[in-house]
Amino acid sequence: MEGSTMAKATVVLRVAAISGSLRRGSANTGLIRAAKEISEESIPGMVIDHVDISDLPLLNTDMEVDGGFPPAVEAFRGRVRAADCFLFASPEYNYSISGPLKNALDWGSRPPNCWGDRAAATLSASGGSGGSRSMYHIRQVGVFLDIHFINKPELFIKAHQPPEKFDSDGNLIDPEIKEQLREMLLSLQAFTLRLQGKPASSEQ
Amino acid sequence: MEGSTMAKATVVLRVAAISGSLRRGSANTGLIRAAKEISEESIPGMVIDHVDISDLPLLNTDMEVDGGFPPAVEAFRGRVRAADCFLFASPEYNYSISGPLKNALDWGSRPPNCWGDRAAATLSASGGSGGSRSMYHIRQVGVFLDIHFINKPELFIKAHQPPEKFDSDGNLIDPEIKEQLREMLLSLQAFTLRLQGKPASSEQ
Amino acid sequence: MEGSTMAKATVVLRVAAISGSLRRGSANTGLIRAAKEISEESIPGMVIDHVDISDLPLLNTDMEVDGGFPPAVEAFRGRVRAADCFLFASPEYNYSISGPLKNALDWGSRPPNCWGDRAAATLSASGGSGGSRSMYHIRQVGVFLDIHFINKPELFIKAHQPPEKFDSDGNLIDPEIKEQLREMLLSLQAFTLRLQGKPASSEQ
Amino acid sequence: MEGSTMAKATVVLRVAAISGSLRRGSANTGLIRAAKEISEESIPGMVIDHVDISDLPLLNTDMEVDGGFPPAVEAFRGRVRAADCFLFASPEYNYSISGPLKNALDWGSRPPNCWGDRAAATLSASGGSGGSRSMYHIRQVGVFLDIHFINKPELFIKAHQPPEKFDSDGNLIDPEIKEQLREMLLSLQAFTLRLQGKPASSEQ
Repeated sequence: MEGSTMAKATVVLRVAAISGSLRRGSANTGLIRAAKEISEESIPGMVIDHVDISDLPLLNTDMEVDGGFPPAVEAFRGRVRAADCFLFASPEYNYSISGPLKNALDWGSRPPNCWGDRAAATLSASGGSGGSRSMYHIRQVGVFLDIHFINKPELFIKAHQPPEKFDSDGNLIDPEIKEQLREMLLSLQAFTLRLQGKPASSEQ
Repeated sequence: MEGSTMAKATVVLRVAAISGSLRRGSANTGLIRAAKEISEESIPGMVIDHVDISDLPLLNTDMEVDGGFPPAVEAFRGRVRAADCFLFASPEYNYSISGPLKNALDWGSRPPNCWGDRAAATLSASGGSGGSRSMYHIRQVGVFLDIHFINKPELFIKAHQPPEKFDSDGNLIDPEIKEQLREMLLSLQAFTLRLQGKPASSEQ
Repeated sequence: MEGSTMAKATVVLRVAAISGSLRRGSANTGLIRAAKEISEESIPGMVIDHVDISDLPLLNTDMEVDGGFPPAVEAFRGRVRAADCFLFASPEYNYSISGPLKNALDWGSRPPNCWGDRAAATLSASGGSGGSRSMYHIRQVGVFLDIHFINKPELFIKAHQPPEKFDSDGNLIDPEIKEQLREMLLSLQAFTLRLQGKPASSEQ
Repeated sequence: MEGSTMAKATVVLRVAAISGSLRRGSANTGLIRAAKEISEESIPGMVIDHVDISDLPLLNTDMEVDGGFPPAVEAFRGRVRAADCFLFASPEYNYSISGPLKNALDWGSRPPNCWGDRAAATLSASGGSGGSRSMYHIRQVGVFLDIHFINKPELFIKAHQPPEKFDSDGNLIDPEIKEQLREMLLSLQAFTLRLQGKPASSEQ
C-alpha cells in the first residue's frame, strides 16, 4: 500500500488542454477551466496546462526558416511536446472541429511531430447534437498524428438547451456535467498510465 | 440554335476559387491558377475569381460587432456571396482539410450563411494518397453549409510522385492533369447550370 | 395554370424507399410506411415503392454468373434502377449504417451501377443522438455511387426518448415528426425535379 | 533472460482475424492466410484464428430469443470474445467497409458487446486508393465498440496495380507487402501487450 501511494505520488501526468474557441465567453474554454479546477481538487497525479492557441498565425510553412518556427509556434510546440496527454474541447463549426483548432493541430504536426504516441480525450459544447459530428474528424486527424483517443466516456454538451449549463462568462455551472467531466479525466488518466506502462493510481 | 447561343452568352458562371495553402509555391494555389487559365482559354461561360484567404483572422466571434465583420472578413464574404459555385483546392494536412481553409469556411458560414445552395468541386494536391481522406471532411462540412458537391470526377494529385507535376513555383505542368482539371470544371459548370435550372452550355 | 396542372400530373416521381432494419417492429420501417401514407395523402406526384432488402444474400461476387445476379438481387436492382430518387431510413448501429443496408447498397452498385445520378434523402430513428453519425457514412458512400443527397432538412429521431414516437409495431404516431417527414419528402421532390430539369410541382 | 523467455512463452495472444470479402479468390482473405503463415513462421506469442463470417444471417434482432442468438451467431461471438485482439482485412466497397463485415461487427456488438477494450489492426486490398477511405469508417465504428486501433502502420494495397500482388486464388505473393504485413502484426502485438500491461515480447 505504501508503494502504491509512492507510485501515485511520483507519477504526475501533464495534460495539455486546448480550447477550439477563441472568444472570451466560450463554453469550451470554460470546460478547460473546469477540468483544471476538478483535477486540482480531486484528481491527484494530473496537472492541466491550459494552452492558448489564439496567437498562432494561420499555418504557412514559408514561415519555417532553417527548421525554426515563429516564436508563438515554438512556444506552442514546446508545451505540446512536454505533455503526457491531451484534452481537446472544441465547438462544432459546420459539422467539424473549429478552424483555429485544426490550425493548431497542424502546426504541432510539422516535423518533428509533437503529438505522437500520447493519449487524448475530446469533448464539445455546441448547439445541435452537442458536437458529436466533429469528434470523428479529430479522431481521424489523430490517426496520422499518432494520438490514442479514449473511447469512453464521450461528452457532447448541448450548450443551448435548458437548463443553463454555463454562465455568461462561459463558466461551467452544471454539477452533473462537472461529474461527467471528472469521469472523463479519470478515464484519460487511466488510459495514459496504461499506455505508459505505469500502475494505475489508487482509488479516488 | 440562336436561342441556345444567346443563352450561352448570357449565362456566365462566377466561380469563387479558394486554395487551402498559404505558401508561395503551393501546388494547390497552382491548381487554382491553372483552372483560371483553362477556363479563360477553353470554357466559355465560366469566370474564376481566385479568392485569397491568407489575411483572414483566426475565427473569433468577439470580432463581430453589431452584426458587422472585420474588413478582411467582409470582403471575403462578399466574394463568396457573389459566386455561382465554388472550387476548393486544399492540401491534406493530417487526414483533413487545412486549418486556414476550415477557418475561411467558418467565417463564410457566420449568419447569414454565404455558401448556401451553390454547387462546388473540390480537389487536392498532396502527399500520400493525394488528399482523398480530406475530401469527405469538406463534404460533411458542406452538408451544414448547404453546398452541393459534384460527385465526379474526383481529383487527387499525388504531388510528390514522379513525374514532376508542378514546377518550383507551384505551376501545374502536367498536361494529363490539366485535362482532368478541365473535365472537373466542365462537370462543375454543368451541375451548376442544372441546379440553377438553366440550359447546359453547347458543346465545347 | 392549366399547364402547371398538367406538368404536375405528368411528372410522377418514383421513390425507392429502403429501411436498414429487418425486424418486424422496426421504427425505421415504420418511417417508410409513414412516408408512403403521407405521400399518398398529401404529396401529388410522388409514389413510394417500399423495397424490402431482407432476402438479399450477403454480398459475394462469386454469385454473379455470366453477368447475372441471383433472382432476389436482380429484382432488387430492377426496383432501384426504376426509381427517380431514394429514401433511406436506417438505424444507427455502432456509429454507422446497418450491415443489411450497406449490403443492399453494395449489391446495387455492382456494374452497371443502379444508383447513379439520382437524388436521395436519408433519415434515422435511433438511440443516442438519433443516428446522426451514420448519415455522413451513407453520404460518403453516395459519392462513389453518384447519389445527390439533399442537405436539408436532416431528420434524426431519438427513438427511445419520451414522448413515445412509435407504437409497439413501429408505427409513427408523433404528429410533429410526421410534419418533419413531410417536409423532407417535399424537399426530396423539389430537388429531384430540379436535377431532372423539370418544373417544380405547384403549391401544396 | 530466462524470465523474459518464460514471459514470452506464457503470453500467447489470440488474434481473431476477419476478412470482409466472401468470395473464394479474395485478396483480403488471402491477406488473412498470409498473416497466419507469417505469425506461425516468425512471430512467437501470436496465434491467428481465421474467423469466417459467411454463414452469419443478415442482422435481425428478432432472431434473438431469450437472450440467445442463432447458432452461427453464437459461435462467431464466442470466437470474438475469446480473442485478445483483432485483425480486419476488408475490401473497400463504395468508399466504406463491406456489408458482410459491417453485419459481423453489428452481431458481435449485441449486448453484451464482444469487442470491448481490445486492440485491433485493419488493412485493405482494394482498387482505387487501396481502401483508405473505408478504414476511417471502421475506426469510427470502433469508438462505440471500444476497440483500440493501432495508428501505425497503415496498409492499403492497390490490388489491381502491377506488379501482381496476389495469385488467382488470392494468395499474397508480393514479398514487400509480406514484410509490411509482418510489421503490422508486430505493431498489433506490441500494442496489445501494452494495453494488457504485459511486458513486450523479446526481440524477434
